[in-house]
Amino acid sequence: MPESLVIVQVYVHVKPDTVEAFRAATLDNARHSVREPGVARFDVVQSVEDPTRFVLLEVYRSPEAQAAHKETAHYQRWRDAVAELMAEPRTSARYVNVFPDHQGW
Amino acid sequence: MPESLVIVQVYVHVKPDTVEAFRAATLDNARHSVREPGVARFDVVQSVEDPTRFVLLEVYRSPEAQAAHKETAHYQRWRDAVAELMAEPRTSARYVNVFPDHQGW
Repeated sequence: MPESLVIVQVYVHVKPDTVEAFRAATLDNARHSVREPGVARFDVVQSVEDPTRFVLLEVYRSPEAQAAHKETAHYQRWRDAVAELMAEPRTSARYVNVFPDHQGW
Repeated sequence: MPESLVIVQVYVHVKPDTVEAFRAATLDNARHSVREPGVARFDVVQSVEDPTRFVLLEVYRSPEAQAAHKETAHYQRWRDAVAELMAEPRTSARYVNVFPDHQGW
């Protein structure tokens, strides 16, 4: 078992008229990503207060799994599709899991 | 099925010397919270870049479930225990789930 899961939150702010296009591209990415063996979760949530803001909650079982994700066709398709949909560059933050333990994701 | 899950991210910044006390109090809260019937997930993660920063990822099956959580002894115990551990007031943001659907949490 790796020392910690690799948890990444990606914060995305899209242009108001691209919300639906972003949702569609991101659903495609998420549905494929959860089938990767090293991906424990790949959740996508949308802000209630500002529907142009999304968070991707990505949980990888190892650093290698995170690197492998970046090499997939679905990630690269998403990255290219959303580039022009964003109102500003996306940001991200890395976390370790406190609860639950590794098996709970 | 409710129209959407109620997803709340709580952002916490604790004083440097209270990291372990915050972890302990929050583990107690999380372990009890996931046993509530209306709680789908209650994840706790800690920043890699700044270990004094935590995020609680709370997923409720309904607004009623969120309200019920606030009435529990374990929530109130946590709220009181962590009040003096924080470096600044905690903030939160509300989200709806884009992916997965309601059954996937």
